Amino acid sequence: MQGDSVIIVAGGEGKRMGQLVPKQFLMLGDYPVLWHTLQAFHNYDPGMPVILVLHKDWITHWQKEIHRFSHSLNYKITSGGETRFHSVRNGLALISEEGFTAVHDASRPLVSPALIERTFRTAREKGNAIPVLPATDSLRILTPEGNRPLDRNRVRYVQTPQIFPTPLLKKAFRQEYRPEFTDEATVIETLGEPVHLVEGEKRNMKITTEFDLQIAGMLLSGSPKKKEAGI
Amino acid sequence: MQGDSVIIVAGGEGKRMGQLVPKQFLMLGDYPVLWHTLQAFHNYDPGMPVILVLHKDWITHWQKEIHRFSHSLNYKITSGGETRFHSVRNGLALISEEGFTAVHDASRPLVSPALIERTFRTAREKGNAIPVLPATDSLRILTPEGNRPLDRNRVRYVQTPQIFPTPLLKKAFRQEYRPEFTDEATVIETLGEPVHLVEGEKRNMKITTEFDLQIAGMLLSGSPKKKEAGI
Repeated sequence: MQGDSVIIVAGGEGKRMGQLVPKQFLMLGDYPVLWHTLQAFHNYDPGMPVILVLHKDWITHWQKEIHRFSHSLNYKITSGGETRFHSVRNGLALISEEGFTAVHDASRPLVSPALIERTFRTAREKGNAIPVLPATDSLRILTPEGNRPLDRNRVRYVQTPQIFPTPLLKKAFRQEYRPEFTDEATVIETLGEPVHLVEGEKRNMKITTEFDLQIAGMLLSGSPKKKEAGI
Repeated sequence: MQGDSVIIVAGGEGKRMGQLVPKQFLMLGDYPVLWHTLQAFHNYDPGMPVILVLHKDWITHWQKEIHRFSHSLNYKITSGGETRFHSVRNGLALISEEGFTAVHDASRPLVSPALIERTFRTAREKGNAIPVLPATDSLRILTPEGNRPLDRNRVRYVQTPQIFPTPLLKKAFRQEYRPEFTDEATVIETLGEPVHLVEGEKRNMKITTEFDLQIAGMLLSGSPKKKEAGI
C-alpha cells in the first residue's frame, strides 16, 4: 500500500566471521537465496520501496553476482551495523516517516506473498504484527536449580516479516542499543506497545546451515506431497 | 549393560485416528522407519531386551510387514494404551526390576548408538538422563495479557531416549495418570527427582509429517556436506 516499505536484513556477517560465503548468497534452485527473498516482496507489491541491508564486506560481491540475474528487481542497498539492531537502524534512515515498514530476514527466501499480505493486514488492523508458529517440540527451561518442563502449548516460534508503523519503528530505533534487542518486536515493546501475533508458515524457514539450504531446495522444487506435509 | 532394557513407543495411533498409515510404518530408504529405530538399539547392544509398544490396530500389520525384512532383530511386542503414559506402563510390565530403562520414540529412527551410549552413561553417573538440543528459534510465550519474549538461551528442545533406573520408573508409573505427563521426565519429576540433560543430536529428529520423512531420507542417504551442516 502507498507509503509502506520493507527492510531486508543481511547485515550481520562480515568476512572476518569465517571463510564461508553466508548462506543468503548461495544458490537455491536457479537463483541466490537473497534473490528469492527480494522476489517475494516484489511479487507482493512491485511498487513497494525495498531497502537491502548488507554487511559492507559483501556489497560488491552481491552487486557483481546479481548482474547474472534479473534486472527487474528495484531496491536500494545500505551497509549493515554491528548487530541486527544497528543494521535495521541504518535501513530506517532511508525510509520516509509514513505507512508501515516490514523487517524481514534475508535468509527466509520462501516467505509467500500471502504471508506478507496477512501480516500487513493484521498490522493495519491491530497496530503491528509478527508471524509465529506453534512449538512442535517438547520443551524444557533451565532454572537456577536445574531445569523444568515448559508447556509448549504456550510457546511460539517467531518468524519475519515483523511489521510496524514506520514512525513508531523510527522512534523505537532511536533508543540506545540493548543486548535483549534480538528482533524488532523486542525493541518496540520497550515503548510499551503490545505485539500482535499472526500465523506464520513452515515454508518460511530460516536458512542458516547447508542442510537448511537442502531442505529449502526440496520445498522450492515443490514435492507433490506438499499438501499432505502441511507445508 | 546387564539388566538394561529399552521400550520403543509407537502406541498412540489407532486406525480410527485417520486413514493414513502412521509414519513409523512408512519406508525410509530400504526399510520401514520403525525397523531403523529397532536396528539402532540392536547396534548399540544386540543383547539388550527391547519392548516394542504398538497400538493394537497395527500389531498384525507390523508383523506381516517385518517378514519382508531382517529376522535378526529380537524384541517383544505389547499393545499401547490410551496415551503415551499408558503405553509406557504396558511396556514396563514386561521388564524385570533392575538396571536402567530407556524409553524411545518409534518415530526417531536416526538416533545414533553414540547418543544412546552417552545417555546411558550420564544416567549411570547422575541417576537419569534425557537428550536435549539448544533452541534455534526466537521464542515468545503466551501470557494472560498477550505475549512476551522468551530467552531462547534458557530453552531446550527435548528428545529421546529418556533413561531412568527401572525400579524408579516402575514406581513413577504406578501413579494415576495426569494430563501433564507428556514424557517420562515429567512423570519422574513428580517423585521429586531432578532430571539431568545430555546433548542430543539434530539427526535424532522426530518424523511426524511426510516432509519430515523426506528430510530423514536426505540424512540417511548421507549427504557429503553432512559435516558442514553440523548434523
